[in-house]
Amino acid sequence: MPIGDNVMVGLNCLEPGQTQKTHAHSGADKFYFVLEGQGKFIVGDEEREAAAGMLVVAPSGIPHGVSNNASERLSLLVTIAPSFK
Amino acid sequence: MPIGDNVMVGLNCLEPGQTQKTHAHSGADKFYFVLEGQGKFIVGDEEREAAAGMLVVAPSGIPHGVSNNASERLSLLVTIAPSFK
Repeated sequence: MPIGDNVMVGLNCLEPGQTQKTHAHSGADKFYFVLEGQGKFIVGDEEREAAAGMLVVAPSGIPHGVSNNASERLSLLVTIAPSFK
Repeated sequence: MPIGDNVMVGLNCLEPGQTQKTHAHSGADKFYFVLEGQGKFIVGDEEREAAAGMLVVAPSGIPHGVSNNASERLSLLVTIAPSFK
């Protein structure tokens, strides 16, 4: 991931059937921007579908994860700040 | 722009002929991810073309700007961290 002093931005791809397990970053906010495909996102108590062009926000400390239950690749531009050092 | 405590993410669009003048953010890193189109980016002493799928990084304090000299809209997902408060 390209890393600045304050933020990092990277690409996460999930193939159909793949899941990123629910987890939390204490002290770091995360944004998922959906580049292609669609996924089922969990943020805290909410579960929602998001597709290309949509932004999903997981504030610091809130558990979050995503599953690709669709038939095409799910590509996500992921921003985490502050960056892990 | 959606704003977390630590980061903000937003969409900037430049029509053909539009320019974002060179400027700097003291204490904040900026990432441009090119969603569509292409642009001429300036970061510090460097000037480079970037097109869809490419990431341009402007570290804290480094002057940066972008011009759309192409014939289609330039759409940028922009991340700034830490967020302006």
